[in-house]
Amino acid sequence: MEKLTIIKVGGKIVEEPDTLNRLLDDFAQLQGFKLLVHGGGRSATKIAAQLGIETQMIDGRRVTDEAMLRVVTMVYGGLVNKQIVAGLQKRGVNALGLTGADMNCMLAEKRPAQPVDYGFVGDVKKVDGAVLADLIDKNKVLVLAPLTHDGNGNLLNTNADTIAGEAAKALAEFFEVTLVFCFEKKGVLRDENNEDSVISHLTEKDFENYKAQKIISGGMIPKLQNAFEAIKAGVRRVVITKADDIGKNSGTKIE
Amino acid sequence: MEKLTIIKVGGKIVEEPDTLNRLLDDFAQLQGFKLLVHGGGRSATKIAAQLGIETQMIDGRRVTDEAMLRVVTMVYGGLVNKQIVAGLQKRGVNALGLTGADMNCMLAEKRPAQPVDYGFVGDVKKVDGAVLADLIDKNKVLVLAPLTHDGNGNLLNTNADTIAGEAAKALAEFFEVTLVFCFEKKGVLRDENNEDSVISHLTEKDFENYKAQKIISGGMIPKLQNAFEAIKAGVRRVVITKADDIGKNSGTKIE
Repeated sequence: MEKLTIIKVGGKIVEEPDTLNRLLDDFAQLQGFKLLVHGGGRSATKIAAQLGIETQMIDGRRVTDEAMLRVVTMVYGGLVNKQIVAGLQKRGVNALGLTGADMNCMLAEKRPAQPVDYGFVGDVKKVDGAVLADLIDKNKVLVLAPLTHDGNGNLLNTNADTIAGEAAKALAEFFEVTLVFCFEKKGVLRDENNEDSVISHLTEKDFENYKAQKIISGGMIPKLQNAFEAIKAGVRRVVITKADDIGKNSGTKIE
Repeated sequence: MEKLTIIKVGGKIVEEPDTLNRLLDDFAQLQGFKLLVHGGGRSATKIAAQLGIETQMIDGRRVTDEAMLRVVTMVYGGLVNKQIVAGLQKRGVNALGLTGADMNCMLAEKRPAQPVDYGFVGDVKKVDGAVLADLIDKNKVLVLAPLTHDGNGNLLNTNADTIAGEAAKALAEFFEVTLVFCFEKKGVLRDENNEDSVISHLTEKDFENYKAQKIISGGMIPKLQNAFEAIKAGVRRVVITKADDIGKNSGTKIE
């Protein structure tokens, strides 16, 4: 089975020219099949504000009314995605930007309005791994925006971590998948104030212990839950690391 | 050789929900292989204005500085393109939205700053007909945004008529191509005040005569020049018609 590396980077990295260029340089150097999933929330918030549209977040998630859906469609599907695609082409990487609506590759359903009405936010229902795998096999480097669709004409705003996890699971049938979540720190830390305290390997049992000890807390918990879920669904390896380190064999590994 | 219909629709049609839905209904009904090229200038102008960016047109063409490039990347590549893609998926059409940067399918060069500096505007240099044909053969319905790239990391704003013409020429090697330009009238008119005066067939000789008689003038001249150029490059047929009539055998035909 061929290897596939899926890199997920958040908005902060892809929205600043310097960090974006560094990321694209590093990504272009990665050997073998690869796929990039990006966020773009900061740009969306900024452009929404310029358009007089207020951003409302609940538990760190964007409430997406019709006006905000137009903004994220523009920003994620257009501005961020196409700038990345053009930047990768410059580096000789044959990129293809996609939303979940393109080729119906990621179908979702609108999240129920209860208990919280997030508006046009989608929970992934079905990923067409075969259609993605076929393009990857032809050396297309897919760049996935955090947008899905409901099959009924509506685009849906979808968390980029979820997009990456769902793509990884669907592609695990076709490739030996390594899923890399980039974030601000070098990995999951034993001591959040010490960047040298990266936990290099994490088992689910370790995870439960660290949670009980409150060494792992907050937003890292759902991220790691997703990671273990991906492993159970056939993903070979999940890595949590800093965007600067994607080419290195560092960070926290879950296998 | 299989038949391929390429439809080009301007911004006015795709930017109003009613006319867009009608177009997508009609487009979904078209038999055989098909491809859609869209504009989006009116939305770009509107959103630019909301962002405090002034639109400057010279001879009907948009001057595209860096700020305007961001706007057209958002609007053409994101908002308009992805809404069309989602709308086609709803209708069972397996659409895939592309800019020229995606899969390097349409490489352009920045237009020289002399005699007029249009900024980030691209003249198409090379279309990868094989990569487009391969997707079309697999029943993907390509939706092309009027954006190309220069291979050096820059997206470029490119006239949608040009995108349609260049795609048609590149695909003529693989398909029997009919290229349909939609505009506000039922076709090229003998009398611009009479919608029943459509010239049903137009030869290059007729065109020269009509030009001399000023029956054909203004923006129709470059459109028809493009049409004859496409025919010479192997496109089977060019049709100029109203968007409402794309499924009908009407309008002005050039063969």
